[in-house]
Amino acid sequence: MRLTRHFLPVMKESPADAQIVSHKLMLRAGLVRQTAAGIYAWLPLGHRVLRKIEQVVREEQDRAGAIELLMPTLQPADLWRQSGRYDAYGPEMLRITDRHDREMLFGPTNEEMITAIFRDAARSYRDLPRTLYHIQWKFRDEVRPRFGVMRGREFLMKDAYSFDLDEAGARHSYNRMFVAYLRTYARLGLRAIPMQADTGPIGGDLSHEFIVLAPTGESDVFYHTNWEADRALDVDADDAEALQTFVSGLTADYAATDEKRDEAREAAAGDALKQSRGIEVGHIFFFGTKYSAAMGMKVQGPDGTDVVPQMGSYGIGVSRLVGAIIEASHDDKGIVWPEAVAPYKVGLINMRADDAACTAAADDLYAKLTAAGVETLYDDRDERGGAKFATMDLIGLPWQLVIGPKGLANGVVELKNRATGEKTELSPDAALARLSA
Amino acid sequence: MRLTRHFLPVMKESPADAQIVSHKLMLRAGLVRQTAAGIYAWLPLGHRVLRKIEQVVREEQDRAGAIELLMPTLQPADLWRQSGRYDAYGPEMLRITDRHDREMLFGPTNEEMITAIFRDAARSYRDLPRTLYHIQWKFRDEVRPRFGVMRGREFLMKDAYSFDLDEAGARHSYNRMFVAYLRTYARLGLRAIPMQADTGPIGGDLSHEFIVLAPTGESDVFYHTNWEADRALDVDADDAEALQTFVSGLTADYAATDEKRDEAREAAAGDALKQSRGIEVGHIFFFGTKYSAAMGMKVQGPDGTDVVPQMGSYGIGVSRLVGAIIEASHDDKGIVWPEAVAPYKVGLINMRADDAACTAAADDLYAKLTAAGVETLYDDRDERGGAKFATMDLIGLPWQLVIGPKGLANGVVELKNRATGEKTELSPDAALARLSA
Repeated sequence: MRLTRHFLPVMKESPADAQIVSHKLMLRAGLVRQTAAGIYAWLPLGHRVLRKIEQVVREEQDRAGAIELLMPTLQPADLWRQSGRYDAYGPEMLRITDRHDREMLFGPTNEEMITAIFRDAARSYRDLPRTLYHIQWKFRDEVRPRFGVMRGREFLMKDAYSFDLDEAGARHSYNRMFVAYLRTYARLGLRAIPMQADTGPIGGDLSHEFIVLAPTGESDVFYHTNWEADRALDVDADDAEALQTFVSGLTADYAATDEKRDEAREAAAGDALKQSRGIEVGHIFFFGTKYSAAMGMKVQGPDGTDVVPQMGSYGIGVSRLVGAIIEASHDDKGIVWPEAVAPYKVGLINMRADDAACTAAADDLYAKLTAAGVETLYDDRDERGGAKFATMDLIGLPWQLVIGPKGLANGVVELKNRATGEKTELSPDAALARLSA
Repeated sequence: MRLTRHFLPVMKESPADAQIVSHKLMLRAGLVRQTAAGIYAWLPLGHRVLRKIEQVVREEQDRAGAIELLMPTLQPADLWRQSGRYDAYGPEMLRITDRHDREMLFGPTNEEMITAIFRDAARSYRDLPRTLYHIQWKFRDEVRPRFGVMRGREFLMKDAYSFDLDEAGARHSYNRMFVAYLRTYARLGLRAIPMQADTGPIGGDLSHEFIVLAPTGESDVFYHTNWEADRALDVDADDAEALQTFVSGLTADYAATDEKRDEAREAAAGDALKQSRGIEVGHIFFFGTKYSAAMGMKVQGPDGTDVVPQMGSYGIGVSRLVGAIIEASHDDKGIVWPEAVAPYKVGLINMRADDAACTAAADDLYAKLTAAGVETLYDDRDERGGAKFATMDLIGLPWQLVIGPKGLANGVVELKNRATGEKTELSPDAALARLSA
């Protein structure tokens, strides 16, 4: 995409109202604009990142055998009365009345709706197990929205729901998602640590939060230093026993949020105990028959008797991840995108848009990169080189490819790695080959 | 995807409350379920179709140079007070009050918001022209929602907005979208005819609706028989003059909705005049400075003076298109999906799941089709062949591949084309080659 035809409003100064680095950088780099308290429009660059994260999340859900559907944003209040949560939920639920005075709400989560949909369709044990998920905008009317998309009101969430015949099956489904989540975060360039968690308004007795370490995180976390190493995630998730052993092996290493600290385990960890701050990027729950029983869901079991399915739910904050990734990956010049979620792979800089030879060479390389399927943002504006470098560093594309008259005279362009700062001079063809690999 | 692990609740009987064929078939084929009046959950099969249509729409918007972003569903009422539409819009606008008693609304369209976003970022003539679009859920509180997703309340729309320095530029942007729309519908397997339209609450003095012919359509339409032929759409959209000539050439052939009939032109068409019923699947508007002036948007022109941009807006009902395509493409057995939007390309039927050789052959072909990237729905259930055929005909995948013991004894499988009913016997390898082509 040529910058002269794009919409990328960057800011030189940090906005006064942004308190944390991801919020500042998302505004400065033109990723989002606030349209109301806690509500954001995703500008083209931010939208591309959001879609890439969504796609990684989707691929790992599909790989785990979960089935995608899409539930609407608005829900009837009556559905939430069936579970008893309509009155219990409190002022974070955005309650709406339509033109016929019917009570509705903007869904903050979907346990009730998915249970109703699956209840009306599933007949027998052959219809189980199933895990269904969707990626949809949710709304929670936070009393004080802040930190940009990290604690916004309208946010994009992937939420999955599992239905099993018995508790052993449900635990297998839970473990499947447990591993799918670790795979997802690894692909996004994040190290996320699962920590035992309270179940809160969702209910149930088994729950984990996934926390990304970041010095600017919202809460204190404590963990064994083993969590700082890479973990192999190549377990056979279809083998329930092997999977349970794998998950138990992982969670044998201590990790806890402030509310869940365990003195004995911390003492056992000794010098291996680490403290940091963290950001929650996922939360999974097993809650048995809480919703299926309340909403009258049952299927015929193999022996002909009725079975009330065991359920779990599994959430990842997709829009929140954009902020979390920036918190975990930036420097004083701007964002440093992991390649898997970068809005473009390459930023191509024409140093002299007023120089015909330089522009011809840049145009040519842009055409070749595009033809090779390399996602390229081409800064073809007639601006100073310094401003172009600053913009590219700010928006944090993994590679910068710089074309200037001096280099061209020697037959070379400059390739810069945004994360390491390493610069290489090479021929345009070699640069093309390197970036298309 | 194996049907034994999928979620595809088909119905044998037509639901009593569905009046039109697309609504009946969408319920029967397990594409959607109603969750509240005029609000639908998209089940896995329907969700796949929705995403495919969305992707075709996106690709043609990108090709036309439009830039994707994503605005939120909820908007502040104050934004709509700037244009004067908050009070004018009427009861179709879903008005919402948040916990701090701030007035909000669920966006039915986004002229105000995009104007505010672009106004705050665009500085000079160099920032124009731009066309920005998003694909987002909208809400219109229809007094009597009906016809399934064709007239629902929560619906998915692609809406684009163009900003130009002058009226000639705006007309060029309008014509670009005009052609992009025709390309989009052609790729979706639809013949859509542009018809001059009223501008309604959007305002402005130039507008076209795009209408798909369907005997079950919502309104009467009249058109020259030339519109029944294929149209070449290979004009150079960057050449404003050539594009205008092309668009004028198209619209020289008469086409009008009931409200816009022209007796003289109908008389001139003579025997070539045709009448049908139609479904609106898109609407484009040029409305000059209506929103930019009201909302104080201006940029510095090339001569240093302020310019108020000329705007247009361009909508395609993505979720409505699912229904419109079914209205235009079905038979008495079910849906007949055009290949570009089919949820899967192939339905693989194992006629005898209780026969080890038959199942081994079907499993093998399923693995090979999947490895070749052919989207395949594999009916591996232990059910009668007749029920499997009926389901496949109902859900309308373009190809059915049938594996049975008799054929296998002769080394053949049967390939059926859903649209034509044509059946071919061929070896499994030949079927694989045909479907992977």
